[in-house]
Amino acid sequence: MAVVPAPSGSMLLAADAVVAGVHCDLDLVGLDDMGWKAMVANVSDVAAVGGRPCYAVVTVCGPLAQLDFDLLYDGLVGASDAYECPIVGGDLSSSATLVVSVAVVGDGGSGVPPPVLRSGARPGDTLFVTGPLGSSAAGLELLRSGQTADAPDLVLSHRRPRARLDEGTAARAAGATAMIDVSDGLASDLRHLADASGVGVVLDRVPIAIGVGRVSDDPEATALGGGEDYELLFAAPDPTRIETAFAERGLGTPLRIGRCTDDPAERRLRDGDLPVVGWEHR
Amino acid sequence: MAVVPAPSGSMLLAADAVVAGVHCDLDLVGLDDMGWKAMVANVSDVAAVGGRPCYAVVTVCGPLAQLDFDLLYDGLVGASDAYECPIVGGDLSSSATLVVSVAVVGDGGSGVPPPVLRSGARPGDTLFVTGPLGSSAAGLELLRSGQTADAPDLVLSHRRPRARLDEGTAARAAGATAMIDVSDGLASDLRHLADASGVGVVLDRVPIAIGVGRVSDDPEATALGGGEDYELLFAAPDPTRIETAFAERGLGTPLRIGRCTDDPAERRLRDGDLPVVGWEHR
Repeated sequence: MAVVPAPSGSMLLAADAVVAGVHCDLDLVGLDDMGWKAMVANVSDVAAVGGRPCYAVVTVCGPLAQLDFDLLYDGLVGASDAYECPIVGGDLSSSATLVVSVAVVGDGGSGVPPPVLRSGARPGDTLFVTGPLGSSAAGLELLRSGQTADAPDLVLSHRRPRARLDEGTAARAAGATAMIDVSDGLASDLRHLADASGVGVVLDRVPIAIGVGRVSDDPEATALGGGEDYELLFAAPDPTRIETAFAERGLGTPLRIGRCTDDPAERRLRDGDLPVVGWEHR
Repeated sequence: MAVVPAPSGSMLLAADAVVAGVHCDLDLVGLDDMGWKAMVANVSDVAAVGGRPCYAVVTVCGPLAQLDFDLLYDGLVGASDAYECPIVGGDLSSSATLVVSVAVVGDGGSGVPPPVLRSGARPGDTLFVTGPLGSSAAGLELLRSGQTADAPDLVLSHRRPRARLDEGTAARAAGATAMIDVSDGLASDLRHLADASGVGVVLDRVPIAIGVGRVSDDPEATALGGGEDYELLFAAPDPTRIETAFAERGLGTPLRIGRCTDDPAERRLRDGDLPVVGWEHR
């Protein structure tokens, strides 16, 4: 039990679990990577509303006798330090399956605009992502084929994804109406945003991360369907204002990828249907 | 992701997981009982510092195809309603082992005295429990032997434990110096309190719940070692003030069970050593 100061603004609450063998193949990545990912998945949820993380609590359930908990905690604490989100409590239990569950409390701030939900996009809004996609999926493919030396940067994208906190704050400040992190894949997460907002969406382009073309037979499908890039996808009515805000903060230019339409059933990629690819929650 | 008002006082953060087959035998209790327990274990942690629960987030990892999630959620939501602690977010994942992890945000208040930790007991303090012990362990024994009709109240104590929120608030207001909930068993939790406070402890008596004597061959051992009663164990310098506060609030009289001493190595039950019994974290 931790006793800590409450956030000064509205409170954000995220919770996400990483299950060995489901979200994380421990034959390919380390326990430290699993811990890192469990923390970052939650911090990214906070980033996706334009908030800041404050505290985390962690429950680890696993085969206690066999498990290298120091390694797991290295990853948890590494991400906790990187995102200034101290782990203030938790619980450790025996379980046949390793499950790392993290809950993060964030500060939503008290000013205007409020935290950005996924439900506020409006027809006419421009769609952005904060960076090109597919790195994590390509990195996983390299790990599976044992060719990690070919592109260590892609492998690192998979093992140590980053949460886009500054980008989320910038998008919120510059009028983003809806935002989500690309954890399930661009196609899936765009659907989530469109469904929640009740708008149609047209993707004009799919930005593909460098190197994905050397790994994947179908780089666009990898970028559309590969999850866990944790780039932010957002909608905003004034794209120039967004680009200016990112530039003023020294952040990479966010990428215009499409727009929202007034036909709530529309899910389009260029001239065709937006494919159904990506992570399905099982 | 939930956006909610922050607690007005200091913030409390608890996290606890319940694992099927480890903390919960689903051949004996229902999935609704498992959900109830996962929530109450956390609410009880908040009670044990004298706080109030505000919000919960829940991650459920389990064999999605086979599991009756409605039943599990019945229990989670039942406890959430009973303790006015709404579930505001969470996550659902596939896992071979069923793990229900709950994190609760509580309000620690902003007044004096501050939330009561387990580390503040002082030599000379009187030790109390909020009620007699062993009901949950006796109820489990009845479930195992199939004789649940003998004492349905004990079975209910095991299946639907209660968190002592009002008792925790009263103890805090009346000067409790250290507090812990009896989740691992009186002997274990008393050790936790004594270790954290750096005091010795002498138990003069072990209050045994009604009916435990008809189920257990050694009722005192059951009361000492049986966990999950979720009564509160606390130390306080002025026992009369404690009893008055409980009476004024219409709460049952807390039971004086012993005292804290200035020998930090002392762990005594009457004239002998405090036995090592109860739940060991595995």
